[in-house]
Amino acid sequence: MTPHHDGSPLHVSTPNPELGESVTVRVRIPESFGTVASVYARSNPDKEPRFDAARLLGAADGWQWWEAVIVVENPVHGYRFLIDLADGTHWWLNATGLSDIETLDTEDFKLLAYPAAPDWAASSVIYQIFPDRFGRSPAADARETPEWGIPAAWDDPVDQVGPGRSHQFYGGDLDGIVLHLDHLQRLGVTLIYLTPVFPAGSNHRYDASSFGEVDEALGGDAALVRLVEAAHDRGFKVIGDLTSNHSGDRHEWFRAAHLSPDAAESSFYYWLDAEHGSYTSWFGVPTLPKFNWASAELRTRFIEGPGSVVAKWLQAPFHLDGWRIDVANMTGRLAGEDLNAEVRQTIRRTMIEANPDTLLLGESTNDASADFQGDGWHGAMTYTNFTRPLWSWLSRPGSPSSSFFGLPYSSIPQYDGHQFVATHQRFVAGFPWRTRLSTMNALDTHDTPRFRTHAIDRGVPVAFGMSVTLPGIPMIFAGDEFGLVGVDGEHSRTPIPWPSIGEPQVADTIELYSALIHLRTAHPALSEGGMRWLHVGEDVLVYLRETAGESVLLVAARAAGEAVVPGWAVAGAEAATRLFGDAELGVDAGGIRFTVVGPSFTAWALPGVRLPIG
Amino acid sequence: MTPHHDGSPLHVSTPNPELGESVTVRVRIPESFGTVASVYARSNPDKEPRFDAARLLGAADGWQWWEAVIVVENPVHGYRFLIDLADGTHWWLNATGLSDIETLDTEDFKLLAYPAAPDWAASSVIYQIFPDRFGRSPAADARETPEWGIPAAWDDPVDQVGPGRSHQFYGGDLDGIVLHLDHLQRLGVTLIYLTPVFPAGSNHRYDASSFGEVDEALGGDAALVRLVEAAHDRGFKVIGDLTSNHSGDRHEWFRAAHLSPDAAESSFYYWLDAEHGSYTSWFGVPTLPKFNWASAELRTRFIEGPGSVVAKWLQAPFHLDGWRIDVANMTGRLAGEDLNAEVRQTIRRTMIEANPDTLLLGESTNDASADFQGDGWHGAMTYTNFTRPLWSWLSRPGSPSSSFFGLPYSSIPQYDGHQFVATHQRFVAGFPWRTRLSTMNALDTHDTPRFRTHAIDRGVPVAFGMSVTLPGIPMIFAGDEFGLVGVDGEHSRTPIPWPSIGEPQVADTIELYSALIHLRTAHPALSEGGMRWLHVGEDVLVYLRETAGESVLLVAARAAGEAVVPGWAVAGAEAATRLFGDAELGVDAGGIRFTVVGPSFTAWALPGVRLPIG
Repeated sequence: MTPHHDGSPLHVSTPNPELGESVTVRVRIPESFGTVASVYARSNPDKEPRFDAARLLGAADGWQWWEAVIVVENPVHGYRFLIDLADGTHWWLNATGLSDIETLDTEDFKLLAYPAAPDWAASSVIYQIFPDRFGRSPAADARETPEWGIPAAWDDPVDQVGPGRSHQFYGGDLDGIVLHLDHLQRLGVTLIYLTPVFPAGSNHRYDASSFGEVDEALGGDAALVRLVEAAHDRGFKVIGDLTSNHSGDRHEWFRAAHLSPDAAESSFYYWLDAEHGSYTSWFGVPTLPKFNWASAELRTRFIEGPGSVVAKWLQAPFHLDGWRIDVANMTGRLAGEDLNAEVRQTIRRTMIEANPDTLLLGESTNDASADFQGDGWHGAMTYTNFTRPLWSWLSRPGSPSSSFFGLPYSSIPQYDGHQFVATHQRFVAGFPWRTRLSTMNALDTHDTPRFRTHAIDRGVPVAFGMSVTLPGIPMIFAGDEFGLVGVDGEHSRTPIPWPSIGEPQVADTIELYSALIHLRTAHPALSEGGMRWLHVGEDVLVYLRETAGESVLLVAARAAGEAVVPGWAVAGAEAATRLFGDAELGVDAGGIRFTVVGPSFTAWALPGVRLPIG
Repeated sequence: MTPHHDGSPLHVSTPNPELGESVTVRVRIPESFGTVASVYARSNPDKEPRFDAARLLGAADGWQWWEAVIVVENPVHGYRFLIDLADGTHWWLNATGLSDIETLDTEDFKLLAYPAAPDWAASSVIYQIFPDRFGRSPAADARETPEWGIPAAWDDPVDQVGPGRSHQFYGGDLDGIVLHLDHLQRLGVTLIYLTPVFPAGSNHRYDASSFGEVDEALGGDAALVRLVEAAHDRGFKVIGDLTSNHSGDRHEWFRAAHLSPDAAESSFYYWLDAEHGSYTSWFGVPTLPKFNWASAELRTRFIEGPGSVVAKWLQAPFHLDGWRIDVANMTGRLAGEDLNAEVRQTIRRTMIEANPDTLLLGESTNDASADFQGDGWHGAMTYTNFTRPLWSWLSRPGSPSSSFFGLPYSSIPQYDGHQFVATHQRFVAGFPWRTRLSTMNALDTHDTPRFRTHAIDRGVPVAFGMSVTLPGIPMIFAGDEFGLVGVDGEHSRTPIPWPSIGEPQVADTIELYSALIHLRTAHPALSEGGMRWLHVGEDVLVYLRETAGESVLLVAARAAGEAVVPGWAVAGAEAATRLFGDAELGVDAGGIRFTVVGPSFTAWALPGVRLPIG
């Protein structure tokens, strides 16, 4: 057990400071760590170090608490702690943990002076819907199949190869979602994330032909208004999905500009010849021409100002509560040009003007940290810190993988608990705390196989338990709660098997999801509390989410095992109240002993953390 | 011994590629590492991963060599290797080493498509001169003491406190340097770095009152012309020192603008009141007003175009060979504004136009990596990767330190060899290979105590041996070779005690420096060769600089000890030829055994590396 700090209210007085504001930061040091000679908070304003001496606040429950006051001098204000012990050793504490040598700026704790995400962001539970596959309203029967579509019955299998891939049309629509809001309410999710609803040339609609209207095949603009109103009435937020990296080649802007060098939209794309016939596209896929963000006119139409696409859908009559941005990582980047920061900052500025109470998430499925320092995206849809290491810990050994989230592995890697935690820490350390709280913790998405497909026996409760209790926003890809499997992203888009909802196994799975979602929403510590790892073993992980009001103690196990934690490491363990699961907890002179008999997830409520403040 | 790659010619076909160019990258894998199933080079163009399969080139001397071809798609092109073994394990290799979990983008190997440093940069050995303290020409006697100066005789002690601090005037001048070029030539250094020579209000001249002329107290413009010509005649390069973060408050620009809001120079500084009376300055020191780089006029006068200060001194009649930029890290940064990248890019662009065969080094004494990705500065004057960890390994335990290079330690930290190497690796990993080769490896500078002051007995040869053999440019602060000590940066500016040059101890120290400098310059592997750690112990470090033509094997030891390296790890060790030092090397069935009897530095030449190409 080592000194600890994180961005939560126990340790930071002002999570959303202004530039120039003073913030108190606290570090707690186990009394067993040694005799502390001095503690400093080390800031790095204008990239030149500054050391602010901390004062000892007092001791409580086996910990010394020290606090320092730092002034937020830059919009991203990095800080770390230097702890000098009386024995002459020097220790640095940053977002990766404790180090006996000097540390990197990128791994500093960070305060942000940019506008924050909405209050409701961190406590959200996202439910991701792929509209063609979720629900069909009666009106769908009367609609014609789009010309790109290959009609499919709701219980037809999904084609994983062409021509069906991307073109099977099941006819799910937005009113079909409204029909199933009861299900979402029972489940307990709070935010509906719709993959694209604009007209396109495929069932996934990431190849938009317009951003100006909702696809008639989904019910058109009026259906979106009905859905958002119905969702809002029940307290759900709803966010949409925009492709800022590319449009479809059927897009009205592209069609105007293609082979027409004089068109107003000519500057929107990268042309490779004088006739504007060939062009740069996403991974060379010709249906997905890449946007050129050097174009001022593109910015005006798409992302900048109240008349832009970004603003339009956040305002009346649509009132979306935010955006998830597709391929955010590649947006504005090509060869020697990198306009990514300008694009993401402009999108967020426009959103603030249209409605500041909105959320902006960016897709960046690998190391996302450099782009997620708070100037635009509130959080990431990424797979590095949670999804991939979780699969690696909880998949059956030898599970095949033709492409593991884009990595050319022939089988899913096998991690032990140490590797899970090391990977998690490595990739969250670069995120400011605020970004971390708004980043998705998904088991799977519409682009990936489904977690359950390769999960160890009884692995789903462990995985989803971690999704709802580690810092970040849990996300359920619709259908996971039905126990669906999917061997790749296409297969995972199997329509929701609504008739199965009463089957015992499905009902149990839905009940499991609902219980864990309600665990999350009932205990604010799981949204905004501090985060400490208490035990990291091969098969058993013990961690704690802490606030002044209440803490929640968690045990995630993939096999039977035991863990012992020093008694002083967790105050109040003897008063633990079971919230979920069946691990045993015992307190004796040897410490706190956790016993698990197999794969399981367990949570207990504990008294909040007592600070030595008089 | 693990798989290896670095940026050297053995492993990279094209160190200075153009955008769009294909580059072959090679990774070597010990045959003992396991059965390799596949190897990929993983690039990250536009921040989206791409995997290029490597092919097996063949095996030689116990290593498999694999190579892949990657296309340089962005100016900073990161890449790493994925090695899949037949046992189902996956390994990543990046600039920090080998990892069994996924790795961060910042730690990728990097190719740069920006213009490179001059050919002579990496093979330079820098000699840093503080002009007031190096040499006095006869003409100095006739000059008046500047009005800010307190006259001091050459052998007067340096005052570490005011009023003498910064104001003692010893009267060293540029012609005084010319008088001692024989010494530099015997020493073998190749590049003279002059701290500022512009008129100022102090002896360090970092508070320039003009950038338009050389201080008359140093001999004026003509003396600089004489010095550079004399130096060039002997084959030395000469670089100057510019303060891009601030000027002095006596600067002609500042005086024009102070209290004169309508002045043309008004935009050059940050004013805090309408009268332009108070202003932002470096750490609040009023004599050092901070430049505001949003000013187009400041850019034109100072850094942009052929008429700028930056260009002027690189051209006839002065012909400086480059610049070291003071406080490069803080330049252009204040509160919400960060113009650092624009400033450094503009400086380098102007230099290329004036004379592309010039070097640009930036001072950034902590974690420098983010600013040193090749778009401006060629290399860093930093203390993180070499200077501080070296002191921590080679200083006497308990050595006091009121401020250890700016860190509030009461004593110099004590590192073992593992900590030295871990710190070194942590801080060089963020540098592209090219930046690493142009970054200073200094034992000390004009701003620090002198290394010898707290060094362990016989520690200087070890430290300086490492300075000339680790990747980077060795830098000697004038006087180190005389065995000077200095307890802080001011004390370290003690004038060179020329009369002592014949004393046996001084002569021995000069001979030591000269021998190690010549070791460096005689063996190109020490400038541009690959770098592999072979053994890391508490007291003994063994490493290798490798090229196809010749390799150099190094042992740095702070105490008696032994190290054993597997025989296959170094081909040709039985043919080792001693170049320096007295460690013993023996090859037998157990491997290569190194024995050292005390603090020492040893180098051997080895045959070059044999690639399985043919």
